[in-house]
Amino acid sequence: MKVAREEPAVSHTSRYALPTEPKDNGTRSNLCSGPLILLSHGDPTGFKPFWRSVGDKCKVTIDSCDFMSYLTDVGKVCWFLEKELEEAIRQLHRTVGNAATDDRYIVVGTGSTQLFQATLYALTSPGGPESVNVVSAVPYYSSYPEETNFLRSALYKWAGDAYTFDKEGPYLELVTMPNNPDGQVRGPVVNRNDGKLIHDLAYYWPQYTPITAQADYDIMLFTFSKSTGHGGSRIGWAVVKDEDVAIKMTKYIELNSIGVSRESQHRAAKILGAVSDSSQCIGANFFQYGKSLMAERWTKFREVISRSRLFSLPKYMEEYCQFSGEDTEPHPAFAWLKCNNDIEDLEIFLRRYKIMGRGGRLFGSDPKLVRVSMLGDEETFNLFLERLSSIQDTIGNGNGNGNYI
Amino acid sequence: MKVAREEPAVSHTSRYALPTEPKDNGTRSNLCSGPLILLSHGDPTGFKPFWRSVGDKCKVTIDSCDFMSYLTDVGKVCWFLEKELEEAIRQLHRTVGNAATDDRYIVVGTGSTQLFQATLYALTSPGGPESVNVVSAVPYYSSYPEETNFLRSALYKWAGDAYTFDKEGPYLELVTMPNNPDGQVRGPVVNRNDGKLIHDLAYYWPQYTPITAQADYDIMLFTFSKSTGHGGSRIGWAVVKDEDVAIKMTKYIELNSIGVSRESQHRAAKILGAVSDSSQCIGANFFQYGKSLMAERWTKFREVISRSRLFSLPKYMEEYCQFSGEDTEPHPAFAWLKCNNDIEDLEIFLRRYKIMGRGGRLFGSDPKLVRVSMLGDEETFNLFLERLSSIQDTIGNGNGNGNYI
Repeated sequence: MKVAREEPAVSHTSRYALPTEPKDNGTRSNLCSGPLILLSHGDPTGFKPFWRSVGDKCKVTIDSCDFMSYLTDVGKVCWFLEKELEEAIRQLHRTVGNAATDDRYIVVGTGSTQLFQATLYALTSPGGPESVNVVSAVPYYSSYPEETNFLRSALYKWAGDAYTFDKEGPYLELVTMPNNPDGQVRGPVVNRNDGKLIHDLAYYWPQYTPITAQADYDIMLFTFSKSTGHGGSRIGWAVVKDEDVAIKMTKYIELNSIGVSRESQHRAAKILGAVSDSSQCIGANFFQYGKSLMAERWTKFREVISRSRLFSLPKYMEEYCQFSGEDTEPHPAFAWLKCNNDIEDLEIFLRRYKIMGRGGRLFGSDPKLVRVSMLGDEETFNLFLERLSSIQDTIGNGNGNGNYI
Repeated sequence: MKVAREEPAVSHTSRYALPTEPKDNGTRSNLCSGPLILLSHGDPTGFKPFWRSVGDKCKVTIDSCDFMSYLTDVGKVCWFLEKELEEAIRQLHRTVGNAATDDRYIVVGTGSTQLFQATLYALTSPGGPESVNVVSAVPYYSSYPEETNFLRSALYKWAGDAYTFDKEGPYLELVTMPNNPDGQVRGPVVNRNDGKLIHDLAYYWPQYTPITAQADYDIMLFTFSKSTGHGGSRIGWAVVKDEDVAIKMTKYIELNSIGVSRESQHRAAKILGAVSDSSQCIGANFFQYGKSLMAERWTKFREVISRSRLFSLPKYMEEYCQFSGEDTEPHPAFAWLKCNNDIEDLEIFLRRYKIMGRGGRLFGSDPKLVRVSMLGDEETFNLFLERLSSIQDTIGNGNGNGNYI
């Protein structure tokens, strides 16, 4: 399946390296003189004020002779994993109750992006004559197709939407829970015996969604970026049931980058450790802060949207959160924004107002939808709401409902 | 080309995750009761005493709110590169005189291993019907074949020794200078118009080899691991002439790991900056220390070898080093040890004495050769020489010369 865009949103063919100003191609002019609002990726800087307030409690100091060796423990399956990080990860999952880690292997990666690719390798190598199909239910995380296909591996290939998948033979299904981009909680879709599941649980944390059960799947991926907001550290981890899979994932990371930054692992251990240590008064506070921040943003966003019928947002059901002990509505890391009038491509439409979202097509979905990040800094988020408000005032009402789903 | 080993030296199919004791398969018993001596990979812990002596000068402190964003500068080609690291890299190359960086792009990677794969992608994508052949002159770095082939990419494939390469069509040639494993300085071998070169200059630093000229190639790879000995940080950098190549390498790293640890980049900037800042009295000192350490180890190693004819080592010619201003002999990071008697597989032979080297076959070469690291800690290195001495006393003389090449 080829995912195409009508026109590139970004320079350098990258979704990350954004131009400072969107290009005016002569047919459409910018309709806004304000600054560019970058909401196309989930840069988690919204949590920064919390971490600034923590002060010295999670500061780390690294001497020039620290972490010189590639190795941390050659007796372990994941021989480059810092012991302190492994302990902090297990403790955090015990505290939050979002994933089973007893008798499971922990594999650390350079973000969950590297771990996703390690998982594809682990579940398909050495490979047979046919490459294994990789699927995920629409709307799926926009990076899955390109990350699966960019090296044209003979081990695996992207096969698109799990709902319409009908090819025979072994397959891998990616289950993102709660889902990116739309925040829905979903299970596997294909449900055949010759399939293997990869659960991407990047957003299964109390600030985004109620913790309704302890997840206990074969392969579960998490990331420091989305759990506490430390995106620049590039730390992810996998919780893996099967030893052979953990060994092969480790082998991938050895061949791909000979391990994972030990400085980042050290810092992640300190921060994740503090989050689950209630004696430090950070743990409960961080998730409370995160949840309040997300709830407040969603409330403000829905309030702006409700003033017009031009845009709509998904609705979510309250559920009991075992971590907080109260009924909680999900407040996803991304908003899956829909336009209800005759705008055909919402990404292109918003770009004329210098709002950069990520268009629905990249998620295997409708171009009338755009994913916008709810995780950025406060000033950008407020500016976004202001600009959206003024668009509504200018364009008028759409034809759809104020809320969908 | 398939590179096979007679028996795996290591557990978990990994060259890194070593067993604490080599397995006795019933036909060969361990001939040594001492500790395992691990010299099979270039873990650069030998430089640790220097960095311990530096004290607080290169210490870094990281607050809990630092480096939360994925992005450093979206206007730059390499949008995740820390500005301070870029400046330190350019300054270091100016100070040492080992590579031209003016008007070149710097791309940072999770070690030069990730950058090597980024380069393969950059030079071959989107790819045609035929995968591009990747070659390197024997003896080549043992990881190149597996790193090239493990994902069975349709973009590129390993084609073995550059000396015997005779296939038509575009190709990539890896030129490691000075070479790993044998320390020789070599140029490209195939020399056809349809080839592109990747220069791996990991060891082109004054502690290993005289700096005879400012390298000025299209793509030059360097690594923090081997320049200053900081292996656990997983920082490498590429110096790249062509903008499109730099953009595509950046794209690979975006898709593979969404950037590179910012903590490690920050620390590398501090350490590389100090090494080239003579006012801090670390710069000249570090390379002097490194060169003395390497020279001393090579002298002791040659002295042990000279007592018998069982083993031999390459000889190197003195050359004028533009950095130190004196004639200097190379002191490579690895010794390419050869046995001169009827031992058929030196890796297996040494393993019976619990010395773990990396056998010649993995480098496309003769199993009578083994690569041993000269970069480990002092105690391990001295134990290695003691044990080699006792092997020589037990086995007696070989039939070859005391030195080869």
